[in-house]
Amino acid sequence: MPTDGPSTLELAVSSVVFALRPHPETGELTLWLPLVRRIREPFEGRWALPGGPLDPQQDLVESARTTLHRTTGLTPRHLEQLYAFGDADRSPGAQDESPTRVVSIVYWALVRQDEDAEAVDGENVEWFPADDIAEEAGPLAFDHGVILAYALRRLRAKVIYSPIAHAFLPERFPLAQLRQVYEAILNRALDPSNFRRQILAQGTVEDTGERMTGTAHRPPKLYRSSPDRSRYTLTIQEN
Amino acid sequence: MPTDGPSTLELAVSSVVFALRPHPETGELTLWLPLVRRIREPFEGRWALPGGPLDPQQDLVESARTTLHRTTGLTPRHLEQLYAFGDADRSPGAQDESPTRVVSIVYWALVRQDEDAEAVDGENVEWFPADDIAEEAGPLAFDHGVILAYALRRLRAKVIYSPIAHAFLPERFPLAQLRQVYEAILNRALDPSNFRRQILAQGTVEDTGERMTGTAHRPPKLYRSSPDRSRYTLTIQEN
Repeated sequence: MPTDGPSTLELAVSSVVFALRPHPETGELTLWLPLVRRIREPFEGRWALPGGPLDPQQDLVESARTTLHRTTGLTPRHLEQLYAFGDADRSPGAQDESPTRVVSIVYWALVRQDEDAEAVDGENVEWFPADDIAEEAGPLAFDHGVILAYALRRLRAKVIYSPIAHAFLPERFPLAQLRQVYEAILNRALDPSNFRRQILAQGTVEDTGERMTGTAHRPPKLYRSSPDRSRYTLTIQEN
Repeated sequence: MPTDGPSTLELAVSSVVFALRPHPETGELTLWLPLVRRIREPFEGRWALPGGPLDPQQDLVESARTTLHRTTGLTPRHLEQLYAFGDADRSPGAQDESPTRVVSIVYWALVRQDEDAEAVDGENVEWFPADDIAEEAGPLAFDHGVILAYALRRLRAKVIYSPIAHAFLPERFPLAQLRQVYEAILNRALDPSNFRRQILAQGTVEDTGERMTGTAHRPPKLYRSSPDRSRYTLTIQEN
């Protein structure tokens, strides 16, 4: 079906990579993500999501994984397709070139803390707290600001009705650590005893019978994600 | 970033269109979808999801809407991106051509019953009950069988934790009609009084204060979708 208009169609694969690290000012666990500084037009000098053109030999997810590893040194287990962004006008070409239509398939990766230990800084790659992007990184290249806002909104919605918070955790964890993940994702403090009561009532975690070692006088119990996901919904109460 | 391998990349937009119609044998409301018979290789003669190459001038969703209208006469309000399918080997070219890499962005449309009244049959277009595809339509072209299975699984999961069932309904509806939508999506009977109790406890519908007209001695109450979606989860009980 031949049509008029821009003749170049490019397919890109980009990733929003969320890891939990302490906030530089508050010290609280918070969402961070890596951005890449563009070294050519369009949007030279601006920060962008890690990504690149689809390698014709690679599956979409494989392509996302390759860029991710090249940019950050990470190979997170949780890598999931988020959305395809393809508005006709979303990617202006460099001024002297003919317009290129770029459709981006965006993946998101959620990085566990032990996986995050593998992170290395690449050239022109920097990590930012997700909620400080506007002040720290300025407006992003292309529509990547829109993509990031979409990813944050989806993550914050999904943490309520799905076990997605567990993607940031090791297999066994104390409830306080699970709460810190919810707090980091939702970007607000939760009442510890309400959280504990709700999570246990929900039946989405189960007691492993073990406790943390080498810590306190009365070390906290360790839980794991329950295989029963059928009743997954957490009503987060305000403090 | 030039690479070896297949040099042709094509971007297609396809749609899984679900409408609720009576099953030809049981008469029960059930999920139907339209398929298009392919009139050329590859997969000539097989049934496929409605779709076509992305028009470079159109946004992705606009392209989905155009194909959908051309194929079925429908313009459903609920049209949502489902997933991008792009495995490197998913689309073998016709035998004598060089291989083409096709990435398909798939949308799903949910058709309200009043919208479905607009449906017209196109040439080489036929509607099938979703769960009878294997027997009635045979194996689908490309990986469209996988795509359809994915769409059905997502719809059946989503009906439990989101208000997606309402996309099939008019603004005001009796609870029995909402139950029929759940039954059609889940493909099983639900106990009317359990369903009623659960839906009302959930707070996702609200009484309009009106009743159906021109029907029974004691016409059923009309409900509407509640704007409060914060506590959305329905635990469907077995009969």
